[in-house]
Order: sequence, then structure tokens, then C-alpha cells
Amino acid sequence: MFVIVVYDTAVERNGTVLKICRQYLHHVQRSVFEGNLSPAQLLRFRRRIEDVIDRSYDHVLIYTLPPGADAVRESLGAGWAAPTDII
Amino acid sequence: MFVIVVYDTAVERNGTVLKICRQYLHHVQRSVFEGNLSPAQLLRFRRRIEDVIDRSYDHVLIYTLPPGADAVRESLGAGWAAPTDII
Repeated sequence: MFVIVVYDTAVERNGTVLKICRQYLHHVQRSVFEGNLSPAQLLRFRRRIEDVIDRSYDHVLIYTLPPGADAVRESLGAGWAAPTDII
Repeated sequence: MFVIVVYDTAVERNGTVLKICRQYLHHVQRSVFEGNLSPAQLLRFRRRIEDVIDRSYDHVLIYTLPPGADAVRESLGAGWAAPTDII
């Protein structure tokens, strides 16, 4: 499934959330990641994010598209050269 | 078509971009909007955004899903009560 993640977290937790996202998804904008995840990978990703965020302050959105559906991504302005690799 | 917009713009332009987004889409996180747009609405929205951003600095991502496809949005942490109305 194609997944888009956008996070709005406290500065002190940005690095931790970024590190987890980079292990599963491609970095396409400051706090935006995208990529294809299996249901099992999505479950593990969600759990790891929930373990590190402060649920009373941080906010993470996970958009999941139906299997087989792909989103077209348009970049206006100073876009990034290319999505980063998953590390 | 279901559209997700994420912007990363200079502080001085945030208000202008926010105002345009609120006329077309629902506000779901600080710099994230979503909603259904017709191709004509998307064209107008894109043009208005391009007119106000500094293309050398600001970055706006527009994800467009295939017609009829809907994304499931999950909110982890301090999510907003509900998406705002379009004004």
C-alpha cells in the first residue's frame, strides 16, 4: 500500500521520528515521507512512532491508499531533487 | 479527485498560502490540507498557489489520487478534533 506520512512533532523529538521514518519510507519534504509498505510493515512503523511521540503534543498523520492505488505527487517551488533512499 | 496538500513555506507567506488552501480544502494539520477537487478546481488552486509562493524557497506538495480512490487518514497523537470547513 502507498503511504504518506506527515508529522508535526516537538523539536526535541523530530530527530527520532525522522530516523524511524527513514527506515521505512522516502523523505520528500521537511516532515513528509512516502512509500509502499506491507500491512505488517505499517503495523511495525505505527507502533514505533507511537512509542516515541508525546501523544498530548505531537501529531502524526498517516494516509494509506487502497492496495494498487498510487498517488501522483506534484512539487511546486523549491522541491527536493529526489526522494531519499530508505536506509 | 482526492487531493492532499503539504506546504513548507517561509513564515511571511504562510498566511497567504493558508488562506488559499482554506478556500479549496479542509485543514487537517498545521501545513496539511485535504479534500476533493475537480480537475478545474485543481488547476485554479495550483495557479493561485504558484502566484504567491517564492519558487526558489517555498515548497508545496500536491498529491492527487486516482478518481474514485480515497485515502484512509489515521491520526496519531494530538490530532485535531475534525478537519476545518472550507470557507
